[in-house]
Order: sequence, then structure tokens, then C-alpha cells
Amino acid sequence: MKQHYDVLLIGGGIISSSIAYHLSKQGASVAILERNQIGCEASSAAAGILGAQAEIDEEGPLLDLAIKSRSMFPELVKELKEKTAIDVELIQKGLLKVAVTEEDSHVLKKKAAQHHRWDEHVRWIDVKEARLLEPGLSPDIYGAITIPGDGQLAPAKLTQALAHGALYHGADVFEYCDVHSLIMENETVKGVQTSKGSFYGEKVVIAAGSWAKRFISSEHVGQVFPVKGECIALQSHKPLLSKTIFLDEGFYLVPKTGGRIVIGATKLQHDFTKTVSAQGIQFLLNKASALLPAIKEATFEKAWAGLRPQTNDGWPYLGEHPEIANLHMAFGHYRNGILLSAATGKIMADALLGKKPNHSFFTSFQLTRVMEGVH
Amino acid sequence: MKQHYDVLLIGGGIISSSIAYHLSKQGASVAILERNQIGCEASSAAAGILGAQAEIDEEGPLLDLAIKSRSMFPELVKELKEKTAIDVELIQKGLLKVAVTEEDSHVLKKKAAQHHRWDEHVRWIDVKEARLLEPGLSPDIYGAITIPGDGQLAPAKLTQALAHGALYHGADVFEYCDVHSLIMENETVKGVQTSKGSFYGEKVVIAAGSWAKRFISSEHVGQVFPVKGECIALQSHKPLLSKTIFLDEGFYLVPKTGGRIVIGATKLQHDFTKTVSAQGIQFLLNKASALLPAIKEATFEKAWAGLRPQTNDGWPYLGEHPEIANLHMAFGHYRNGILLSAATGKIMADALLGKKPNHSFFTSFQLTRVMEGVH
Amino acid sequence: MKQHYDVLLIGGGIISSSIAYHLSKQGASVAILERNQIGCEASSAAAGILGAQAEIDEEGPLLDLAIKSRSMFPELVKELKEKTAIDVELIQKGLLKVAVTEEDSHVLKKKAAQHHRWDEHVRWIDVKEARLLEPGLSPDIYGAITIPGDGQLAPAKLTQALAHGALYHGADVFEYCDVHSLIMENETVKGVQTSKGSFYGEKVVIAAGSWAKRFISSEHVGQVFPVKGECIALQSHKPLLSKTIFLDEGFYLVPKTGGRIVIGATKLQHDFTKTVSAQGIQFLLNKASALLPAIKEATFEKAWAGLRPQTNDGWPYLGEHPEIANLHMAFGHYRNGILLSAATGKIMADALLGKKPNHSFFTSFQLTRVMEGVH
Amino acid sequence: MKQHYDVLLIGGGIISSSIAYHLSKQGASVAILERNQIGCEASSAAAGILGAQAEIDEEGPLLDLAIKSRSMFPELVKELKEKTAIDVELIQKGLLKVAVTEEDSHVLKKKAAQHHRWDEHVRWIDVKEARLLEPGLSPDIYGAITIPGDGQLAPAKLTQALAHGALYHGADVFEYCDVHSLIMENETVKGVQTSKGSFYGEKVVIAAGSWAKRFISSEHVGQVFPVKGECIALQSHKPLLSKTIFLDEGFYLVPKTGGRIVIGATKLQHDFTKTVSAQGIQFLLNKASALLPAIKEATFEKAWAGLRPQTNDGWPYLGEHPEIANLHMAFGHYRNGILLSAATGKIMADALLGKKPNHSFFTSFQLTRVMEGVH
Repeated sequence: MKQHYDVLLIGGGIISSSIAYHLSKQGASVAILERNQIGCEASSAAAGILGAQAEIDEEGPLLDLAIKSRSMFPELVKELKEKTAIDVELIQKGLLKVAVTEEDSHVLKKKAAQHHRWDEHVRWIDVKEARLLEPGLSPDIYGAITIPGDGQLAPAKLTQALAHGALYHGADVFEYCDVHSLIMENETVKGVQTSKGSFYGEKVVIAAGSWAKRFISSEHVGQVFPVKGECIALQSHKPLLSKTIFLDEGFYLVPKTGGRIVIGATKLQHDFTKTVSAQGIQFLLNKASALLPAIKEATFEKAWAGLRPQTNDGWPYLGEHPEIANLHMAFGHYRNGILLSAATGKIMADALLGKKPNHSFFTSFQLTRVMEGVH
Repeated sequence: MKQHYDVLLIGGGIISSSIAYHLSKQGASVAILERNQIGCEASSAAAGILGAQAEIDEEGPLLDLAIKSRSMFPELVKELKEKTAIDVELIQKGLLKVAVTEEDSHVLKKKAAQHHRWDEHVRWIDVKEARLLEPGLSPDIYGAITIPGDGQLAPAKLTQALAHGALYHGADVFEYCDVHSLIMENETVKGVQTSKGSFYGEKVVIAAGSWAKRFISSEHVGQVFPVKGECIALQSHKPLLSKTIFLDEGFYLVPKTGGRIVIGATKLQHDFTKTVSAQGIQFLLNKASALLPAIKEATFEKAWAGLRPQTNDGWPYLGEHPEIANLHMAFGHYRNGILLSAATGKIMADALLGKKPNHSFFTSFQLTRVMEGVH
Repeated sequence: MKQHYDVLLIGGGIISSSIAYHLSKQGASVAILERNQIGCEASSAAAGILGAQAEIDEEGPLLDLAIKSRSMFPELVKELKEKTAIDVELIQKGLLKVAVTEEDSHVLKKKAAQHHRWDEHVRWIDVKEARLLEPGLSPDIYGAITIPGDGQLAPAKLTQALAHGALYHGADVFEYCDVHSLIMENETVKGVQTSKGSFYGEKVVIAAGSWAKRFISSEHVGQVFPVKGECIALQSHKPLLSKTIFLDEGFYLVPKTGGRIVIGATKLQHDFTKTVSAQGIQFLLNKASALLPAIKEATFEKAWAGLRPQTNDGWPYLGEHPEIANLHMAFGHYRNGILLSAATGKIMADALLGKKPNHSFFTSFQLTRVMEGVH
Repeated sequence: MKQHYDVLLIGGGIISSSIAYHLSKQGASVAILERNQIGCEASSAAAGILGAQAEIDEEGPLLDLAIKSRSMFPELVKELKEKTAIDVELIQKGLLKVAVTEEDSHVLKKKAAQHHRWDEHVRWIDVKEARLLEPGLSPDIYGAITIPGDGQLAPAKLTQALAHGALYHGADVFEYCDVHSLIMENETVKGVQTSKGSFYGEKVVIAAGSWAKRFISSEHVGQVFPVKGECIALQSHKPLLSKTIFLDEGFYLVPKTGGRIVIGATKLQHDFTKTVSAQGIQFLLNKASALLPAIKEATFEKAWAGLRPQTNDGWPYLGEHPEIANLHMAFGHYRNGILLSAATGKIMADALLGKKPNHSFFTSFQLTRVMEGVH
């Protein structure tokens, strides 16, 4: 066990694992310091939608980052499979963003037109066409945006694959390693105190999702907070669904391998518990069975919750800490952590290795944007 | 491992375990032959309501058996605890049979009056009184019958305690022992062929619940069939309920130790699957939150299903097979298996040991009652 | 739900699923009738070694079948992934059959020479070379046969993929469907009686592994019996092993994705229980840590047991029943069920569809071979 | 949800739950703040031996506390059962402290003589007598000390019962509530910052076991550290053991209800992981099967690990913090947390309520004892 690394990563979720993978692949010595086990929080709770256009409507750096990240997956998934034999179950059958009220349909038609300008495959379809694509959809819907480019994958497997890809390239992973505090010297971070003793690193990255503010008592990250999302999984031997079904409010049905359908998610702000409430399940089942009536007969498999790290303006924090030298941030991806993991890992690794990031949008996510009123 | 016993019991549920306990306690050599593990089917899926008066409205042998059985529990529970150290979590805080419509209230008032004649503590109470007893009940209910004598316990623990009580008295328990067929000689049963080889017994008891008709191809038991019941368990640190809440249709909320509430059950006839459907959970949650609104915030713990063995006339079969000598029946207890287990075990043991059963009602449950039109 | 099929398959393990896949792919209507859930017995308990040459030393039909089957996997795995998105984690990094005593080394050197005649890549290597290939191996071993062509995969996933591949091609899968008896007419099978009612089929296949003799009371299949195998899985973030390690007695260490190592298996004949004994785990851990000392620090994950269907002469039964028309057999694959599943599914499907099987060895596995003294 | 309490308890293990129970029973307003779930760490990992004389050989305050605590259980268990219906499976069948070498026997004979002076029932017995009491013990042992007064119980249930007993008396329990830091004012603690916001209390108790030093950066508690203990549970339908078997080194076999035997524990200092190693299980199984040979055939149920909070001098810290007003300590009970929980809860509650503790030994456990060289 080394005690000095090029980069120390606090947190063992998908963002940390992706940064570790991209760093170690380029030869850096890296340690992941995870309080519990790799991927045990939001990263394994997610549904794994790669919903670049489904989730983000506004043109700008976040949509750019999302589209770039989505485009990286086919290649990333392939190289992870070669190195780790882990398959992340990437399914690229598209997504329907469904209107369930007439009002919805007006809003979504406009969004469809807007997205169509950037991506000609994105377009509005009426109920009839939607039900040709997904015959199980309720006839009561009001049409949908079809987004053929949005896919989905198994997020817990992707996190494992990234972490094992990092191990493959020589990274160290320390599980059950609780970081107590940063080791500081002259406003420069030198390492971290943990339940496993001290670790030192040239650079330290806080990639701890909803728990990020345990490590820096700064007003800058005061606005990171959890939004608990409750989910359920059903199973059916009958083919109920092939595309992801998505509502603007963030409700979704995602068809996984083996006849599993993941249904999510509620949104409970500032809730750190990981319990699932009776009303959460009621909400999800009522909503799902209205959209896809045949789901009523599917088998209930399990329920769970994850804590998505939200920020006040809805954008993640990426980049250097404004006051503490060598300290970097990578958290706050909210509902888009899986989607953004590929690009976040790559551009953070490049930045940490001193490469001039060729992504002009990188500066948009810096911690100081709040003060400057960027967004 | 002996191969010859006084009594062989096919099945390892609560009925079989109770017969085994009462037989071995009186010195008989007994073997339980269980296909999987002790109590793994309906016995551990039940909610454990000892609802003698809640479940059975009609005067007659079944109510007599139920009341007798219910009265045996305090003593039985005590002796099992002494012998096995297993506590079955007997809670005797009564039951409210609630009217949720005005029509319900007319029906239940009559039932209350009827039961009151046999048990003065049973009586109709109005909404106000019901909500004094259980403040969490919805103000929209129409009153309730209060049955202070009905209690509840942990059925999986009771099954374990009975089986371990039998072991304590020298019985043998064979798990993963699949009975293939009866060994017959001159219309007399001599033993059974199993996946563990042949076993011989002076008497053989079929106590296999919903699976009883795998062993005798007789029209007599043709009418045993499963009624699947789906259940869920919630948990709360807040005190939500102290008594069992029961609806006439067979829906219930049962407050267990540690803040757990068991909610059941759907009724799916002739369904041998043990899956839980989306609509089953929806039904239970919608019903429960209408009755006890605060339950919405409780934590979902798990969902499961059990197969209750039903008969055409709703009464269990207890006693000798009319054509095959030395073959006895004890199955078909439907929703009352836990409640009836104590008395069933005792009177079956007495009958098998050749004691003249002092229960005049014993004959009411014989297999031939159908032909004779007893019921 | 249809009630009449071209082929009814009793059992829902890997053999049944493979036959169903190959049948439905060719357009036949098929139903899998599984007592519990798909793949819940030996198929998911196996380690998934595709050890054609590791397991079978003798030239002849069984080795031919094994080598043919092994060669089918890369293509089969690819088409299942396309149809079901399920990846079966096929790893083709070879196998070392290790000598742990001097006597072993004499035996294995001879086997290596023998196999080398058929496959030039199979050869004997000394300790030094073995430890270059697998640095973690104990220096106390006496050399090994290297078999680069033997691979391994995730058997539970393969079973799921085959069953879902069959669903994809229109097959029906009935879980929790307990077959009680065959429906016979003039020494011809017409269908089966089950807990879900009667099913009819042109042909019926018994593919029920260790439970096959529940369905035919014939001396022919009297010799099918379970050999319980206990297994454990360990996990490590350190790279401990890349190839499968195999001892002649049937002990093995199999490196899976995500740092998991599966260790198996004990051999307990005629044992239908699925419990794991203290001494089984002791045996596996003692053996494994002698072969691969660093494994001592790996994390224990779980222990389980599966019932491998063995026959008296060690060969599976494939083909028609000698006395009952339209009844076919496919069971008794013992430790080679995963390996043989691909070819068994294909040749059984061809035979059931009336295609003249182009495999001359097909007759070698017929049920009557015992009487004819084939083997 | 109140935000101001008489006492805030950091940690939700057995010590915290016992203090909360005794405080709330006397009318104090109390909140338990638990990072995860009640009793999820060492409290549920323990074997539950009430081994006052087995564990502690030296006369003095610790033995006094242990004997006092052991004597409180029968009454405590009874009142918790009445209030919560939770039974903690208290079994009082004694303990044998076994000599496995001749050297052991010399040491234990002396200890027996010493304990005999205080408790006449404690005495040395030879192999023959030991095997009369426990016929399964190996004939190779060298005798044992019999301690009829030592019992055992189910520690996870006791923790639940204490927490639910506290809820019964009006306490609040906050799960998934991560305490970040103490709120200080003029060297006085006023409350705590948590993931659920701020809580205020007249007094704050750190009862966080191995994690205690996350909250106070003082050299005084620098010496609290985890000693990981790995355990396994086996099960048998055969009666293998009735008393607890204990070796001086801290190895034990504890017979639980339902035929379960808990075997523990390894000792891994400064290890915060909760994984179980291959060698840990090997060690436990080898040791157990040497002592009780028939255990080899028992069924393996599960393996787990817990982190026992150890201090440098082996005594717990109880009492006020020497420098921070209103801050109290209750941690460091190492292997005796279950045994000492009853008395610790009572005397801490009395002290916190300003009652002059009538236990002269109370001062022996204060935090400053190190500097004063008390021990």
C-alpha cells in the first residue's frame, strides 16, 4: 500500500471511478477512497438512462457535455469489456418523451422542434405512431417526442467496470475508508486523514456526491444537497416495452435485460435517508400503470432509493477550488451522473494531468460561477 | 436415521409441525418429510392473526374449533418457549373489524350482536370510539366491531417453535425430502417413496396444504386448491397502530414488534406462483392508506406471497381417508391455518394415538362429508 | 395461453432452455414447464467451466460432443446478446489442470501427451512455466497441463439468455408449474398434468436433471441421481488469477468478472439437500489456499450447493424413450451441463423436428444403451 | 420533530440505545442520532455472551460493573418484553471455559480457584465431567471452568428492544442522520450539526463505538480503535450444544434458538472494513471442529464481521469530557458491549440526570484516567 499518489479521489461512485479510470489509463497513480463499497450509493441506484436530449432542453454547455458524453459510451463500453470482461448492458433503442396531458403536448411539440434543429432524428410523433413503436402505451397519451439516439445501460455494472478498469491500469481502491478531514498546509491540500490513516497526494478530488460538503466548509459548496429518488423494478416474461419511456417531470420506465423494467423516481429534497416510503411506491405504480396498463400484471422485484446530488442551479461543479490549491471538485451531477460520467472522467483527468482541456465549456462548471452569476 | 416410525407426516408446515409436536410429546416416534424447508410456504407467509371471531361468523364446529384453538395459545406458547427458547411474539391486544361503507356497517352491526351473545366483550363501536382506540384510523370509516379476545403472533416463529419442540421430544425432521408416492399394500398405506429413499410408518398423514392432491388421486381431495395471497410489510418508528384492523373481505393491517405492520392479502384462486404483482401491491397500499392515512410515510420493507389451501366448502379436511387404511388427512385450513394449528395438532395427535377424541366436532371435518352433504 | 404445443419441455434448466431456444428459433411452438423459476437449480449453481478437455479424457462420443459444444459458444453467445442484450461473460483465457502430487504429474503428463495428439496447444508445462502463466500458484505444485482452448462463462446468465432467446422466438415459459404426471394414451405421451392444469404437446421432453425419475417409473432412468456440489465465491480487488485452475478430482478455481473467484466443488452422491456443510467449506478453503496462497486474504462472498444429475455410466441420456412414443430424454449431464448445453440443445432440436441428425454419435447417448452394454 | 432535547446521543448502537431507554424512562427528552440504522454495526454483530466471569479475570471495577450488569438482565428483559413485545432470547444455561492445552489447564485451574472465592458455583471440572455436561466436546480437551451464571442473548434484538423501549417512553430516533460536527460555544457543547440539520441539547453523549474519534479531536480518545471480529453461524437440527463454549483467547461457540450456533471471533486491530476473509472462516471452522467434532456436518448459514471499539487499556470510557462542558463519553466496551449495556445505560442515565451515582466505581472509567495512570 502506497501512501503517496498523484491523485486522491474522495468517494467511490461513478464520477470518481471514471476519473480514476481515465487518469490511470494515462499513467497517473491514483487511489479511490470510498467510505463503504464502490458504487454503493446513487451510482447503483440510478436507472441508467443516457438521456442527453430527454433530460436537458436548453442549449449550452450542459447539453454539449451530455451529447459529448453520450457519444463516448459505445467506445468506452467496448474497451471496458476488453479489460474487465464486465458488460454494462448498453441498450440503444431510443427513448420516447411522452405527453400525458394536452398541455404537455404543446410544451413537448415545441421542444421537439427545437431539438430537431440540432438532431434531425428527434421529432414529435402522435399517439398512433407512438403506439406503433410501443404497442403497450396507453391510448390516453397525447403523443411523444421520439429520441432514437438516447440509450441506457446498467449503472452499477458501469461503475464496477470503471473501477475495475482503473485497477487494471494500476489504481488502488480502498473500501471502508472513511475520510475524516483534509490535510492542509499553507492553503494547499496535501492529503487526507482517514479511518485507514493518512494518505498524501499531489492533487485531491472531492467526488463524493451528496456528501461533498462534509469535506469543505465553504459557502461555495453549501448548495450541494441530496434529492432522494425512490425506484422499483418489475419483471415480466411478456415483452412489455422496448424503448425508455420518459415524462418531463422526471418519471420514467426503463426496459432492462431479462424482462426487467425499472420505474422511477420520486424527488425528495434534502432527505438523506435511503428508505422507500409506502406513498413512493404507490406513486410509481399508479403512474406506471396509467402509462403502460399491462404492467399491472408484472412481478414486483424490489424497491430502493438513491440520493442524487443536486446544486442550486442544477449544474455540476467541475474544476479547481478557488481558494485551496490542488483541491478539485467533481460532484453535483443530479439526475445525469451516469450520462455525464464518461465526459466528466475524461475532462477531469485531462485537467488534473495539466493538459489544456480542449473543451471550451469546461470553465462553465467551475465553483466560482455562482458569484460571477454565470448561470 | 430410523426408517420405521409410528407416524409419517407429509409436509413441513404449521399443521404438520403441530401434529408432530403433540405426537412426540406423548411419546410417539414421528418423522416430518418436507420437500424444501420447515415452514417455507404458507406457514411463514401468513400474518398470524388469531382471528377466531373475526374470520368465522357462523356458529358450528369451525367456530368451536377456532375458539378452542385460540384458547390453547397462551399455554402452548409458554411451553414452547421453555423447551426451545423461541418466542412467537404473541400479542393479545384485540382486533377491530372495520366497516368502510354504510352497507358494511349494517352487516357488521348484526354480526356484532350475534357474536355478543357468545362473548360479551365483542360489540359494535362507532367511529368516535374506534378512533379513541386507534387514533390513526380514518374518520371516513363507519364504525367497527371490537373483538378484544382476538390476538396475533409470528407464524414463521410458531412453526419453527413447533418443529423444534418436536425435535426436543425426539422427532426426526427431514428437509429437502420430496415425497414421490405412497407405498401401498392391500389398500393400506405402509409408507412413502421419497427422494431420500423409502420410509415406513404405522400411519401416514398428508399435511401438505395446497399440494395435498399430489399424493392421492382421489375425487375426495380434488377440491383442494391454492388461493394465493400477496402481502407487504411496512415499518415505522412512530406508533401507528396497536390492534389488528380487519375488513370483512379479508383485508388486514397487523401491528408487529419493532414497528412493523403487515398488510394483506389479495386472493388469487388456483394460482401456484409465488410472485407478487404490481397490481397486488397497488391494491394493498391504496386500501391501507385509505384506512390508516399516516401509513403513507411508513417505510416499505418487503412483499411476498403465500398459497393458502382452500377447499370447496371452506372447511379443512381432518381425519381418516375413507378407502385407504392408516392414511390420514390434515389440510385445507385456508386463511385459518395459524389460528387452527394448536387444536388441529392436538386432536389429530389424539386420534392418531387411538385416543377417543373428546371433541364431538371432529367428525364434521372428515373427508366424506362432501358425499354426505354435511356442509 | 395456448394449451397445445409442438414440444413440451419438463424442467427449466440450461438443457431445457437450450432445446427451447433451438426449437423456437426454427419455428416450433414450445413451452417450458418449470416447477420453480428458470435456472434456479444446478444451472445457476455451476461454475461455468467450458472444460472440454479438462473434464473428459477418453476419446469417443462424449469428448466429440464436448468439443463440438465448446466450439459453438462464441457464435451462440453473440446471437443471444443481440436478441436479449444479456451478456454471458464468456472468458476465453484457458485452463491449467494442475498436478499437486508427484503421482498426479505422472498421470497428467500422459493425459497431456494424449490430448496433444488431437490439439497441439494442449501440453504439459513444469512448475516454473505454470507460475509464469499464473504467478499466484503455489511453488509446491508439480506442473500442469495447459489447455488454452478451455474457457468459462456465467451459467445463470447463459440460462437466462437461452430462455429469453426462446421467449424472443415465441416460446412460452411457465414458472411455478409443477408437473404431476404424463398424460398417456396407448403407450404414447399426449401431454402433462401440472399444477397449472393440462398441457398437450406433439412431443414431450424430460429435461429435469436430478429430478428426471419423478416422471417415469422405468428401470431405464433408475440410475439418475444427484451429486451435490458445494461451492463458495470469494472476491478480491487484487488480480489473483486469470485462468481456470482445475484438479483431476474435480476441484477448481474459476476467475470471474469483477475480481470474483468461484471455488468448487464437493461431491455428495444421492444428496437432495441444498445446504452447505461446515466441512464442505473447510475442504474448499483448505484446498484453495494450498493451491493459491494469496487467496487467504480474499473476501468471502457466499456459499451454495447445486445438484448435478449423474448417471451410472457417467453419460447423459439423449433421445427417445424406448417404450413410450413421443417421449424424449435430455438429462444426466453431471458436471458438464453448461459445456454440453449448446450442442445438446441443437441436436435435440434437430431430432425433435425430424431432421436426420448429422451427428453420428447421437445414438451413443440413447436410453437403451445400458441394456445393450454400450458403455 | 423537536430540535431541542435534554440529551442528544451520537450513535445508535446498544450503548446509546440503553442510555436512551434509561433516560426516557425517567422522563428525559432524548434523541438518538444514528448515521445508518439502529444497531447496524457491532451491536448486531456480537454473539451476545453475558460472560462476566468468562471475559474478566481481574477483580476490580470492570468485573464489578460486569457482574452488576449481568444481574440486571432478567428484569430488564422482562420489562422490555412488556413494553415492546420484543423477546431478546435470553438463555441462562451457563458457560464452559475450556482448556485445549495442558498449559491452558494450569492457567484455568488457577482462575477457577480465584473466581470460586467470589462465586461458589464457578469451579474447575475435568474432561469427563465437561463431556457429561456437553457430550459433543472433543475428548482431547484438558478440562474446563464451569460458570453456571453466565448466559447469553440475541444482541440485535436487545438493541431493537432498547431503542423501541426508548420510543415507547417518548424518545426520538433519527436514522440516516450523519453527525458532522459538534456545535460549540465557550468550550461548552450546545448541539450537533448533522445531515438532517442542527440539533440542540442540554447534554451530548458520544456513544459511537469505533467511530468515536470522528467527533472530538482530542488526544484523550485517540486510543479508541476498532478490533474487527469475524463470525459465522451454523445450523443443525441435531442437538449439538447447550452451553456456551469459550476459550481464553476469545474464541467461542454460542448455541442459539432454532439449532443455530454462532462461532467467533477473529481479532483484527485497526481494521475498519466489514468484509470476512477466507482465512477468517478457515480459522473459525478449524477451531470449532477441533472442539466440537460433530459440527462438521452442520449447515453453514452466514458469515459477518463487526468492529469492536477497543481502548489502549481495555476499559471503556464513561463520563464527562474533561475540557468540554456538557459533553459525555460512553464508548470503548470492546468485546463486552452487550454484557455491560444494562449497567452502562443505567449509570450514564443517572449521571446525566444529575443523580449522584451510587456506584463508587464510576470514576474509574473517566477519560482522564490515562493521564492519572489509574490503570
